[in-house]
Amino acid sequence: MRHVAVITVVGAGMMGSALCVPLVDAGHQVRLVGTPLDETIITRLRRDGVHPKMGLALPAGIEVFFSSEIEPAMDGVEIIGVGVSSAGVDWCGRALAPFARPDVPLVMITKGLSWDGNALRILPDVLRDHFPETLRESIAPAVVAGPCIAGELARRVPSAVVLTGRDVGVLRRLSSLMRTPYYFPFVDPDVLGVETCAALKNAYAMGIAFATGQHEARGGQPGSIAMHNAESAVFAQALFEMQRIIGLMGGSNASVLGLAGAGDLDVTTNGGRTGRFGKWLGTGLSRTAAIEKMEGATLECLEILDQLQKAVSAWQSAGKVGSGELPLLRHMQAVALDGAGVDLPYAKFFQGLPE
Amino acid sequence: MRHVAVITVVGAGMMGSALCVPLVDAGHQVRLVGTPLDETIITRLRRDGVHPKMGLALPAGIEVFFSSEIEPAMDGVEIIGVGVSSAGVDWCGRALAPFARPDVPLVMITKGLSWDGNALRILPDVLRDHFPETLRESIAPAVVAGPCIAGELARRVPSAVVLTGRDVGVLRRLSSLMRTPYYFPFVDPDVLGVETCAALKNAYAMGIAFATGQHEARGGQPGSIAMHNAESAVFAQALFEMQRIIGLMGGSNASVLGLAGAGDLDVTTNGGRTGRFGKWLGTGLSRTAAIEKMEGATLECLEILDQLQKAVSAWQSAGKVGSGELPLLRHMQAVALDGAGVDLPYAKFFQGLPE
Repeated sequence: MRHVAVITVVGAGMMGSALCVPLVDAGHQVRLVGTPLDETIITRLRRDGVHPKMGLALPAGIEVFFSSEIEPAMDGVEIIGVGVSSAGVDWCGRALAPFARPDVPLVMITKGLSWDGNALRILPDVLRDHFPETLRESIAPAVVAGPCIAGELARRVPSAVVLTGRDVGVLRRLSSLMRTPYYFPFVDPDVLGVETCAALKNAYAMGIAFATGQHEARGGQPGSIAMHNAESAVFAQALFEMQRIIGLMGGSNASVLGLAGAGDLDVTTNGGRTGRFGKWLGTGLSRTAAIEKMEGATLECLEILDQLQKAVSAWQSAGKVGSGELPLLRHMQAVALDGAGVDLPYAKFFQGLPE
Repeated sequence: MRHVAVITVVGAGMMGSALCVPLVDAGHQVRLVGTPLDETIITRLRRDGVHPKMGLALPAGIEVFFSSEIEPAMDGVEIIGVGVSSAGVDWCGRALAPFARPDVPLVMITKGLSWDGNALRILPDVLRDHFPETLRESIAPAVVAGPCIAGELARRVPSAVVLTGRDVGVLRRLSSLMRTPYYFPFVDPDVLGVETCAALKNAYAMGIAFATGQHEARGGQPGSIAMHNAESAVFAQALFEMQRIIGLMGGSNASVLGLAGAGDLDVTTNGGRTGRFGKWLGTGLSRTAAIEKMEGATLECLEILDQLQKAVSAWQSAGKVGSGELPLLRHMQAVALDGAGVDLPYAKFFQGLPE
């Protein structure tokens, strides 16, 4: 007999809402709680079941709650999903603090890194900073990463993801509870590597898309002769730099080659918001104009580029990284944070290959 | 002062011809020799300089020769480029045997693997089997790999590639001679890893494109909501299996993460012939109908899938690989060699992840 659980997902944006679809299909009792920024989404979901940002009706089984109703939404909860954006992690940590319990696993789909003045921290650690001190050590949120565009998951496109965390037993249980014929969570215990990949891909997908924009700006059409060579050169350099950054954080780079690294970088470039933003920058639009084109979509890439700028600057002062390293990251920062034009530094790529 | 060399490229298909463009732009004296199958290409190039398969005029500086004229084409040659398809390697080895000299570097852009009944061999080794025995040990062809669609290189799209081979000094010299403001050859001495990646990507790009075909067959349009999640899951599984195969061949897997592995897999999926072939199979077309749709384009993927089938069968008999391993490869073989329908085995992916 299949175990059915009460699962409450906090954050009714695209990804939090999409995650509810396989959870309902797997037979669970699913509740979706909006953040204070999700009021219009919850209102619409209550009215006719349609998620306005995804333009899609969610399955009828999902119960929806306003942020003010979080208490009833947590009644009898067995698994808590965290689906807020990286900017919402502090709010979410505070909101969940009264409900955090060691025997209620937390599953995060939020991606990001946060520079605390000394180290680049992963978001599960930032989240549980808000929990009572006595609980912090006994709660290790699991994290979902890998190539998963929300709108596709909500439409039941086959999607494979990794589940990472510090307790492999919990991960295996979650993997089995969340699996459906189209949603495949694989267990990967490399927390730091997976989390870092998941955050970094949001930055690097922007740079890979620069070439698409350059191609369009020159009058080129999408198709077989475009600037794929340039895009793929940047793609490979992105993986090269992701490895380096994970190394600087003290992690293993095995995940760079997997779903969380190369897989998620691929999907974000091909179908994600960050790719569209990078394309606009590549066409020659200014930083401000490109942001306007995105019509208010959350741009996690700007946040992660900013956090990395602080980290790289500190690592460089400490002699841990050379000024010629990470040329793609530095160029993306110049373009997206400081308003420089796109001019990819190909000749500086792949320095430090073994010879 | 820049050293200018006499460079003769053998094989006037798309890639051999495209390689001549940066070589001419780098100031070299470039000669292009057709194979016996390239007669119509050479005839057209002699007439008006247009390469019929690329639909593009090559730079005027390239001298073109019929295969029967290989002797004058080799007069005073300083570097020989090998641009034939994998099927042409034996012909090319025989044709080059009279001209092979230890002090004339060979640069191959041909990709493939060949099962000799005992081991999966890389093509530089197959090529020099045809050279006089006294020369074999002193000639180690360099190989160009990485994301480089011929039609884009010929149009001077920024392209980064790796140059691998057994003599790093020669590789450095070649890298410096071949570099232009849009063509960036980086030295990577991992011959087995780079060569194997270069061959394998032709097979795996086909499987990644299956999902695009499935999406189209269901009436879906290309765009932001398609089957990117599925494609990227297969992309990550492809890298996972490429690592495994290189391990079985006794090589290092560092190249899987670089230009030759992930980079080339990315470009082949997005803009290569193999991707288009895989898409046709994904729409539900039979093997035969999909081959017809490709209108005679060289399908290296079929050859490499066939060679790998022999290799995997031998490895499995020897107990080196389990029957549950390489599920994507086995599915691609069932579809492309045996005519099975596309039904990607997602649930079998990523077995053997560390836990």
